[in-house]
Amino acid sequence: MSSSLCYESKTPMEECIMSGGNDQLSYTKNSTYQGRVIEVTRPLINEAISEKFLAECLLSGRTICIADLGCSIGPNTFISMQNIIDSITSMYKSIHGQNKTTPFTFQVFFSDHPSNDFNTLFKSLPQDRQYHASGVPGSFYGRLFPPASLHFVHSSFALHWLSKLPEELMDKNSLAWNKGRIDYTNAREEVAEAYASQRRKDLDCFLLARAEELVPQGLMMIVVPARPNGVSHSHILFNILNDILGSCLMEMAKRGIVREESVNSCNLPMYVASIEEIEEAIKRNGSFSIEKMQILPSVSTTDAGLSPQGTSSGIRAIMEGIIKEHFGFEILDELFELYTKKLEENYHNIVSAKVCNLVLMLKRNS
Amino acid sequence: MSSSLCYESKTPMEECIMSGGNDQLSYTKNSTYQGRVIEVTRPLINEAISEKFLAECLLSGRTICIADLGCSIGPNTFISMQNIIDSITSMYKSIHGQNKTTPFTFQVFFSDHPSNDFNTLFKSLPQDRQYHASGVPGSFYGRLFPPASLHFVHSSFALHWLSKLPEELMDKNSLAWNKGRIDYTNAREEVAEAYASQRRKDLDCFLLARAEELVPQGLMMIVVPARPNGVSHSHILFNILNDILGSCLMEMAKRGIVREESVNSCNLPMYVASIEEIEEAIKRNGSFSIEKMQILPSVSTTDAGLSPQGTSSGIRAIMEGIIKEHFGFEILDELFELYTKKLEENYHNIVSAKVCNLVLMLKRNS
Ligand SMILES: Nc1ncnc2c1ncn2[C@@H]1O[C@H](CSCC[C@H](N)C(=O)O)[C@@H](O)[C@H]1O
Ligand SMILES: Nc1ncnc2c1ncn2[C@@H]1O[C@H](CSCC[C@H](N)C(=O)O)[C@@H](O)[C@H]1O
Repeated sequence: MSSSLCYESKTPMEECIMSGGNDQLSYTKNSTYQGRVIEVTRPLINEAISEKFLAECLLSGRTICIADLGCSIGPNTFISMQNIIDSITSMYKSIHGQNKTTPFTFQVFFSDHPSNDFNTLFKSLPQDRQYHASGVPGSFYGRLFPPASLHFVHSSFALHWLSKLPEELMDKNSLAWNKGRIDYTNAREEVAEAYASQRRKDLDCFLLARAEELVPQGLMMIVVPARPNGVSHSHILFNILNDILGSCLMEMAKRGIVREESVNSCNLPMYVASIEEIEEAIKRNGSFSIEKMQILPSVSTTDAGLSPQGTSSGIRAIMEGIIKEHFGFEILDELFELYTKKLEENYHNIVSAKVCNLVLMLKRNS
Repeated sequence: MSSSLCYESKTPMEECIMSGGNDQLSYTKNSTYQGRVIEVTRPLINEAISEKFLAECLLSGRTICIADLGCSIGPNTFISMQNIIDSITSMYKSIHGQNKTTPFTFQVFFSDHPSNDFNTLFKSLPQDRQYHASGVPGSFYGRLFPPASLHFVHSSFALHWLSKLPEELMDKNSLAWNKGRIDYTNAREEVAEAYASQRRKDLDCFLLARAEELVPQGLMMIVVPARPNGVSHSHILFNILNDILGSCLMEMAKRGIVREESVNSCNLPMYVASIEEIEEAIKRNGSFSIEKMQILPSVSTTDAGLSPQGTSSGIRAIMEGIIKEHFGFEILDELFELYTKKLEENYHNIVSAKVCNLVLMLKRNS
């Protein structure tokens, strides 16, 4: 295992924007960051696609099955899948000669919640794709595929979503009752612990399912926001942004625009695990070796072309659904106006916050 | 090959309603017919799932892959897929003992045009399904799956759709110019020949693709409206219904409500092939043996619970899209009012028309 556990604190909002996979706006604004992700992940994929991996693929038939878990509607997922295929193809050619055509057929499984807009995904599939495309509806915290049927699993900016909220957060008699907040960042320790515990269970389910679905020597690349060991929740950009959103809601509660109880019962189903927590989950599971572990480089605010307004829109794209459900859509405009204002006020905090996106390349043991 | 080439002329509208896979109404009204389809196809599936087939499945891994081509949005597709799985499971148990659980995992591919509403399909997947579900967008006239990756292909009430319209129909200089009609039924011979020729090409593409995708000994069950040899187009219910729709449009053209040119350029992209034409395509292809060939029993009008009004709604559900595109949605209500009236007037024709739905069980040669 070679890992370069460093992190940068240079800049801000890319990760929230990346998570805004459901929003067209955030995609177009986000090509710079996606470019960087590709720069970092491509050599990682190239290294992982070894001769041994190819031999294993040939053993299990000539069809290489690749899955993207939490694919959203594209176009990122199309880029990622193409990268993996390109990498396999060029590895094959580098062994067998540039003029040889690969004997492989590729089957790509785009997977996300059944509520994902697969219709849009299917309609925007690249015309010139060299693979058989397929959509798989379901949660990646459960089994999605037959045993030993996948050669390469990919998942980016999705694994920080929890399968469900810890119940204690809504229980007034629990120390983890999350009064006046929608996240764990500056909350009582018990709140963060409830989140962390759910994260542990979820990661265990995810890894268990994938261990069954991957062929021996199969690869899994994960890109996920993470918290560097020793850094507190409140120094992570992702958390700061969520926390500010919660404080806006509380301000609106004080002004009587939303009910305070609604804020108490609203909690965001996401958690940025520490690098240690992620490594421990992999060890606990025992079926994977960590081939590579790396932090994505940050992008400067200017490069990403982001302003407090842009960040606000990006976060709105992700959170709108959750907020609407709890507070009704009427509050959205006012909430995000206030949010933009608060982001402006806190801009120094935001610019200096830690952004850490982890890239992991795991290999299924034989 | 054992075939029972008989046909019944008893009743009417079931096939059009079955084709109305996109319309909720037509499904609910159609449970009687679906029940009959299951009655007929179940023993066919049971017979085809031989010990040899199971052995072949075990050889190619323990995952049995089943595809439904032209699946629409359910629920019919869910019933069909469950039937096939049940049949395989009970065959396994009858060989290895009732208490043995099957060593198989099932992977079901629901396939249809990319414009099909996969979102609805995915949201209505049976909760208690014992298979991994997956959606595959694309035309079944091309390749959809990796080579030798499917064990069982199913397609019902979909193969009478053409991949495209023969161009001659729109060419004023061609003898196949289809002036004043939207189908081939009472048209010049050249029109029907143009349709038949497109049907030939399409069937060839379909069979070629499936021959590549099915494993040796793999099975393919097709249910499709067909024309008994020697019976003319104009005696087939399916055709009568389309032809009456065309005559309604021409009547509206005479009244100045639609343009006659629009009727000239509107042609329905479907063709009911004769049983002979279908058999010939299979022979031409050469990769399949016909294990079984049978005509579905008809359902009486009363059983199907259908009236001219019901038939009109069923046909509207199928044709609305095509009509809207050519004539605008404004004409729909008037058109289908007129259509209902004409169906009432022609009810004796309709009740005495030939309905012939063919069920084919094909086996991929080794
Ligand atoms: N438990 C779960 N199972 C499947 N998908 C999930 C999930 N939790 C979150 N997701 C999905 O994860 C996606 C995160 S957005 C990320 C999209 C894409 N991978 C990219 O990198 O741009 C969303 O589409 C969301 O629906
Ligand atoms: N070339 C093609 N490729 C894929 N699907 C097609 C097709 N031509 C027609 N279809 C689909 O075939 C379906 C016919 S409706 C039949 C639905 C279902 N099989 C049943 O038996 O109830 C429609 O959903 C239509 O979109």
